[in-house]
Amino acid sequence: MHPYRTHTCGQLSAANVGETVRISGWVHRKRDHGGVLFVDLRDHYGMTQVVADEDSPALEVLDRLRVESVVTIDGEVKARAESTVNPNLATGEIEVFARSITVQSRADELPMPVAGEQEYPEDIRLKNRFLDLRRDKMHANIVLRSKVISSLRRRMTDQGFLEYQTPILTASSPEGARDFLVPSRLHAGKFYALPQAPQMFKQMLMVSGFDRYFQIAPCFRDEDLRADRSLEFYQLDFEMSYVTQEDVFQMLEPVLAGVFEEFADGATVTPAGEFPRIPYAECLLKYGSDKPDLRNPLIISDVTAHFEQSGFGLFEKIVGGGGKVRVIPAPNTADKSRKFFDDMNNWARGEGFAGLGYVTRKGGEFGGPIAKNHGADRMEALYNELGLGPDDGLFFAAGKEKDAAKLAGAARTRVGEELGLIEQGCFKFCWIVDFPMFEYDEELKKIDFSHNPFSMPQGEMEALEGKDPLDILAWQYDIVCNGYELSSGAIRNHRPDIMYKAFEIAGYSQEEVDANFSGMINAFKYGAPPHGGSAPGIDRIVMLLAGEQAIREVIAFPMNQRGEDLMMQAPTQVSPKQLRELHIRTIDPPKADPAKQVRTDNIGD
Amino acid sequence: MHPYRTHTCGQLSAANVGETVRISGWVHRKRDHGGVLFVDLRDHYGMTQVVADEDSPALEVLDRLRVESVVTIDGEVKARAESTVNPNLATGEIEVFARSITVQSRADELPMPVAGEQEYPEDIRLKNRFLDLRRDKMHANIVLRSKVISSLRRRMTDQGFLEYQTPILTASSPEGARDFLVPSRLHAGKFYALPQAPQMFKQMLMVSGFDRYFQIAPCFRDEDLRADRSLEFYQLDFEMSYVTQEDVFQMLEPVLAGVFEEFADGATVTPAGEFPRIPYAECLLKYGSDKPDLRNPLIISDVTAHFEQSGFGLFEKIVGGGGKVRVIPAPNTADKSRKFFDDMNNWARGEGFAGLGYVTRKGGEFGGPIAKNHGADRMEALYNELGLGPDDGLFFAAGKEKDAAKLAGAARTRVGEELGLIEQGCFKFCWIVDFPMFEYDEELKKIDFSHNPFSMPQGEMEALEGKDPLDILAWQYDIVCNGYELSSGAIRNHRPDIMYKAFEIAGYSQEEVDANFSGMINAFKYGAPPHGGSAPGIDRIVMLLAGEQAIREVIAFPMNQRGEDLMMQAPTQVSPKQLRELHIRTIDPPKADPAKQVRTDNIGD
Repeated sequence: MHPYRTHTCGQLSAANVGETVRISGWVHRKRDHGGVLFVDLRDHYGMTQVVADEDSPALEVLDRLRVESVVTIDGEVKARAESTVNPNLATGEIEVFARSITVQSRADELPMPVAGEQEYPEDIRLKNRFLDLRRDKMHANIVLRSKVISSLRRRMTDQGFLEYQTPILTASSPEGARDFLVPSRLHAGKFYALPQAPQMFKQMLMVSGFDRYFQIAPCFRDEDLRADRSLEFYQLDFEMSYVTQEDVFQMLEPVLAGVFEEFADGATVTPAGEFPRIPYAECLLKYGSDKPDLRNPLIISDVTAHFEQSGFGLFEKIVGGGGKVRVIPAPNTADKSRKFFDDMNNWARGEGFAGLGYVTRKGGEFGGPIAKNHGADRMEALYNELGLGPDDGLFFAAGKEKDAAKLAGAARTRVGEELGLIEQGCFKFCWIVDFPMFEYDEELKKIDFSHNPFSMPQGEMEALEGKDPLDILAWQYDIVCNGYELSSGAIRNHRPDIMYKAFEIAGYSQEEVDANFSGMINAFKYGAPPHGGSAPGIDRIVMLLAGEQAIREVIAFPMNQRGEDLMMQAPTQVSPKQLRELHIRTIDPPKADPAKQVRTDNIGD
Repeated sequence: MHPYRTHTCGQLSAANVGETVRISGWVHRKRDHGGVLFVDLRDHYGMTQVVADEDSPALEVLDRLRVESVVTIDGEVKARAESTVNPNLATGEIEVFARSITVQSRADELPMPVAGEQEYPEDIRLKNRFLDLRRDKMHANIVLRSKVISSLRRRMTDQGFLEYQTPILTASSPEGARDFLVPSRLHAGKFYALPQAPQMFKQMLMVSGFDRYFQIAPCFRDEDLRADRSLEFYQLDFEMSYVTQEDVFQMLEPVLAGVFEEFADGATVTPAGEFPRIPYAECLLKYGSDKPDLRNPLIISDVTAHFEQSGFGLFEKIVGGGGKVRVIPAPNTADKSRKFFDDMNNWARGEGFAGLGYVTRKGGEFGGPIAKNHGADRMEALYNELGLGPDDGLFFAAGKEKDAAKLAGAARTRVGEELGLIEQGCFKFCWIVDFPMFEYDEELKKIDFSHNPFSMPQGEMEALEGKDPLDILAWQYDIVCNGYELSSGAIRNHRPDIMYKAFEIAGYSQEEVDANFSGMINAFKYGAPPHGGSAPGIDRIVMLLAGEQAIREVIAFPMNQRGEDLMMQAPTQVSPKQLRELHIRTIDPPKADPAKQVRTDNIGD
């Protein structure tokens, strides 16, 4: 017989009744029913009820053991009495009567419990992550993460992608975020950087002739931490050669829809091939955001034209000054109190906006100062244009276009939530497309790149040479799910001549481009295929599927919000010798760590 | 029609003759047959012959283009004349007659060629890796690597393993090699370290209740580089709970044998279930190494007893002083000249050994000074004991046991190679088992750990308390293929009491153990399952399968031997601002880099 187990704790059923078995696991819970001890024995696979009575030598041992100790039980599988069958447990029809026990590992008193739903402070959970991870939900989250990634890999491979590893010790990249640096021992005064993303390398792979690359790629950004951001994170990084934007969409939609359908646990998912494509400008108008949550049915409208001449002087003035008036419907709010509308206005002020105007309507009667001043007839005309009904309220966001759009977007979310309009149990995907290539930088009083300078402009050289730069769109796209941006992506500019021209429009000389992007530009001069890709964030995908609000709930060993690994105690002080070897010194040298070093040449595999 | 291709360059066959197609790729080779131009168009998938004659507008364009330019060809699939069919090419039955051409990317004059077999200096290859990777063999190596890793993943998953990611920014680990350090911005004077291996984390995963973990894990060691070692490398890192050494072997053998059989290209592979298990002590004796190449049929024997009294005074003296005499047969060397044997002796001296003695034999007649002094009768007795024949020579390695074993091992390899005895076209696996737990440290005059202090001693506490420490073996094992160690591994010591005892034997107090290994010891105090694992080196596996001698040939973007990425120019100087943010300064500050920074917020996905 195997020294540890003949079966896992999730395996035994009525079919095994009468068998002599050996199982091993953690003592999850103990219940003493006066001389009979019931123990839930837990392992990765499940839970099995172990019973010991006074006839069993295991009773005394189990009685004295703390929960979370690890034991091996030899015993007999017995059917449970019908009244004690647990239909929620795979092994709920049986119990194992313990004939003998071996203690594999004795647990001390626990710093936090494993059984039960009790919430514990995050620092205790992270310091004792090896206990925290034993808890039901955390265990399920990490297994889910593993399965999601495995499924993503399979779906990419099935579409002819190969996974290639790109370097983790690499050069500082000219992306927006802060790099993690790694001092070089062999090259005094020089540093490697950890990749913010394998952007350069994946494009190099295309230039190298590999057609379809993907990688579950670790990425690193030394940015301040938030609930949905960690210092290291994973992307489904991919790139394809000889493709258009349409090809990228047709490839990725089945991957994302597929993995969400597989793990959505009954929630509906936008079907592959049906992801809406929302032009960036339309998106800002209709959703007040470039990350629209399509579970929210509310659509923002522009009603600026209605207020060019209005009895409501404030709006007339805003519109006269080139501003915009945007509205968010509040359907079926005839029964809402004045307070509901005033609270919305107060909320908007609390968020730093000038205020959120509103019109109420009850059985066709308008209410509130805007309606009063604007006039019921003109308000009715506006309502008719928007297709609103006799009991629908309306919120107004007015101001400079950017401000009005931002407030309208925030109000759309808030109104949707307050009115319970957000559709539950669904994952709604969309693409945001047609991003502008350039924008006017108000501060620097010049045209600059709007998003990514290395995206291919729509219309290529012809557009750059013939169009107003501010009218040029880029082959750039974002993928959004339930209001979360999973990734941006683009068809890349693979042509040095077009790249120099685009940078020229943004005010950079060929020499400056060469100095900053020599690696990429140089490679493109020896035959580069048209290519494009994207890099959906894995941690966010798993977060969405697990229904978690914080990224740390779907990472096995995350850092806390201060960038510390409380279990492993990183970051840590290092020895002066290590610093000398790396040709650096710390500016505020920490006190030396006094722990005596044990000499060990090799503790790993 | 798709703007870039209806077919890849590896797709068209006789079945497509008559079709109008569009293909894109790199201009691999051009051959001008007087007014008719033949172009090999290449992409990831293959090569297609394109033909342009004076009727085709593509002729002039192609004629002026440099090789490695990227073009799209519209054309007609034609059957090749029977005499020009190329059976070695998937598309060898057809050619595409070019009707029109679009140049996607114009290539400058190349710094190194892509077509052809010519070898180029490594620095040129690495600087232009995007060209180097287009070459047949490199392209095949990197694709092989991807497929090997994918196959390993599938084989692990099929055995119930789940892949979990462990942190890359972590704590400095007490392993043997030098850590890469990453200065912390948020914690002045403190550093993260890149993992030399996820050893601690994989054991933590077991303690956390995940039963079967694996990861294609990036590992980092700041050690000097060799042909088979790079700063970052990948391991098939795995760990299993509730297992014995036997379980580990039974799990891993089908994985390794399977992946080698899949990609060995006809070479034979030791079948799963039949990997020989060689005890460490026996291995040192028979192969003079703990990494035996079993393709070499030669076996070393100990003949010390034969020389306790010998006319050959040198050996008698060595044996009298406690030394050993080991022999390596040189079968069927009757026709080898005296020079062959003397050259072996000279080689051994060149390697720093005292010398390699020998006996020649021809038709039963012994030759050489050892035979002469030892006497033909006693030499014949020795030969009979070893089962050697009348035309077999014999090499002698004598000295202190370690030196004799080492020389014998090196000589075994050399003799095997010189005599052409190394079996070709095979991958021979073996396990090395029964490593000693402790050894006597001659320098420190004390007992210390022999290999890994965290392996479980065979016999556990009972052995530690009852046996001579130098007789205690560990549940530790290496997996070796064709003389390459792919990995060590072990059943871990999961019991704090046994761990403290083992460290006590090696002279360390409980306080010292707690101070150095608090994370692991602490976790084990709250219920740890018995567990073990290993971590075969992926780069070495791919190297073996690709038949390459250098690890850089199986890594897409490797560093050179000086730890530089010549293409991306890493490591590099960084700005004083970056250093200030990280609270460090360099000891020899490099000159500032004058390149003007282009402002770009986001160039990646």
